[in-house]
Amino acid sequence: MRIFFSDMYQEFYRIFKKTGFIEDKAQLCAKLFTETSLDGVQSHSVHRLNFFLDYINKGYVKIHNEPELIAEFGSFERWEGNLAPGNLNAWFSMNRAIELALTYGMGCVAIRNTNHWMRGGTYGWQAADANCCAVCFANTIPNMPPWGSIDRKVGNNPIVFAVPRKEGHIVLDMATSMFSYGQIESHAQRRESLPFHGGYDSEGNITDDAVEIMKTGLPLPMGYWKGSGLALMIDLISSALSDGNPTHNLLKPRDQHGVSQVFIAFGMDKLQCSAYADTLVNEIIDFVHTAKPLQKDGKVYYPGERTLNTRKENLEKGIPVDEEIWKKIIAM
Amino acid sequence: MRIFFSDMYQEFYRIFKKTGFIEDKAQLCAKLFTETSLDGVQSHSVHRLNFFLDYINKGYVKIHNEPELIAEFGSFERWEGNLAPGNLNAWFSMNRAIELALTYGMGCVAIRNTNHWMRGGTYGWQAADANCCAVCFANTIPNMPPWGSIDRKVGNNPIVFAVPRKEGHIVLDMATSMFSYGQIESHAQRRESLPFHGGYDSEGNITDDAVEIMKTGLPLPMGYWKGSGLALMIDLISSALSDGNPTHNLLKPRDQHGVSQVFIAFGMDKLQCSAYADTLVNEIIDFVHTAKPLQKDGKVYYPGERTLNTRKENLEKGIPVDEEIWKKIIAM
Repeated sequence: MRIFFSDMYQEFYRIFKKTGFIEDKAQLCAKLFTETSLDGVQSHSVHRLNFFLDYINKGYVKIHNEPELIAEFGSFERWEGNLAPGNLNAWFSMNRAIELALTYGMGCVAIRNTNHWMRGGTYGWQAADANCCAVCFANTIPNMPPWGSIDRKVGNNPIVFAVPRKEGHIVLDMATSMFSYGQIESHAQRRESLPFHGGYDSEGNITDDAVEIMKTGLPLPMGYWKGSGLALMIDLISSALSDGNPTHNLLKPRDQHGVSQVFIAFGMDKLQCSAYADTLVNEIIDFVHTAKPLQKDGKVYYPGERTLNTRKENLEKGIPVDEEIWKKIIAM
Repeated sequence: MRIFFSDMYQEFYRIFKKTGFIEDKAQLCAKLFTETSLDGVQSHSVHRLNFFLDYINKGYVKIHNEPELIAEFGSFERWEGNLAPGNLNAWFSMNRAIELALTYGMGCVAIRNTNHWMRGGTYGWQAADANCCAVCFANTIPNMPPWGSIDRKVGNNPIVFAVPRKEGHIVLDMATSMFSYGQIESHAQRRESLPFHGGYDSEGNITDDAVEIMKTGLPLPMGYWKGSGLALMIDLISSALSDGNPTHNLLKPRDQHGVSQVFIAFGMDKLQCSAYADTLVNEIIDFVHTAKPLQKDGKVYYPGERTLNTRKENLEKGIPVDEEIWKKIIAM
């Protein structure tokens, strides 16, 4: 079934109000959840709502708390997240990084003791909408084995890159694992193999067998040693710059709350590069679009291109949702 | 055979002087080449010298040129590389980013019309030596097919992350291809398969057959679509921020000169995070070191750890070099 944007927004808004969010925060939280769903990322919206509310009930996520400025150094600021909702904190942090970028040319916010930012790409789109390039990254619980190991000692720490473009922004939002937990799970449920190596089996062999990977809980870093190294660097830099928790402090007793995140923005107008960047970015996209496809009827996409297509279709036709899950949301 | 650091430095210095470098630049260039060799990265030092000198002879690399400031916005500066040697320009740019970071907390230098930076990790070590965290990236000629294509339309654009640590810095230096050209070539020469998928064969299948990949010239992005997306974002951001050449302008007629690079540094002292970062970084490394290894006698390494081991060994015993290549260098 399909639900129109405004109807979905109203349901999320109703639930967040009922949960106790004040007016402004209920509106922003509903907007972020609905936009994520509109873009087709149900894993971090409709399918994540229970998880989000559960963390509020457990007291991990404190809906009345606000981020607090700890230290400021011109274009760089350090904030205490006070365990407020991760998506609201992340939105706030990127907004602040954008304000710094509009003032100084470049801005960076490091925030500690925050929570899961839900869809990381959201903050890339946010920056690009303000005509900023952006890089953001975050740590997570230890949920991935570093290369050479079968022991979960790094996070699948996500990283986001964004570049503004009038015809549609370019936004890359990726975890440092090869596949997300959700992708492995859905392949396992359908008893399908992953398209490529995605984790380890119980004998420590690299495999594309999703059922085996669900059993071992050992996902593969993207690009083997490269994703493993990148995950470690993200943990080091985000916790060092924010004075926040590193990955190894996030599992017990914290159950992934109190994470560390970094938001960097470059203001294209302030840096006087909008004029040539507008032309340049289109040229680069055009060049990549002319790449000969591997499959006969294939097409090469830039990061974010399919999101734009999905967004357009879902705005017109409504957002596809699982009927059972949607019934439960309406009944909340 | 092994050559001691000071002897290798003298040879490089002699050659760069003979090539026409002024005193200061001959010294720095020799230092950078020798340190890269000391760290075991011969592909970007001893084995790269001919390539480097060839580009000077062709007039692509202009050894008497200096970088020039185009625009400054506090913590962000844009520089014109004037086609000066890429390693000297990159060293200069990271040094300037460090100076900005020591002044403002964070610093960024975007440089255009520069040249191949040789070993990218060099500038990560440089930043970490100044107690800075760093992120740097660069574009290259189109030498890799974007995901979904068998047409070289993105670069294997490298990215470097660095975190300072008294006991030895953590430095990740990676291309966005799964394997470097040098690795594929050396496997092909030995008729060995790559340890994992590394490119495409002539029928467009993903393969670990190094000989086939050498034939097609189609390396695989690291992590498939992820490395492809990352390579594109690096090209977009580095050329947009520097007002420089994007990848698609670098092939003809430029033959990979005039590339675009970005250097970001965070000053840990200025940002008042040295005290806790010193402890934190060691904790993170200790945690990863305790990961149960996949192989019985295996060990989990952090990025840069083996470099430190190699550096130590080569400082004591001399730097291992190919005898034939070394003879040619001495005869230059």
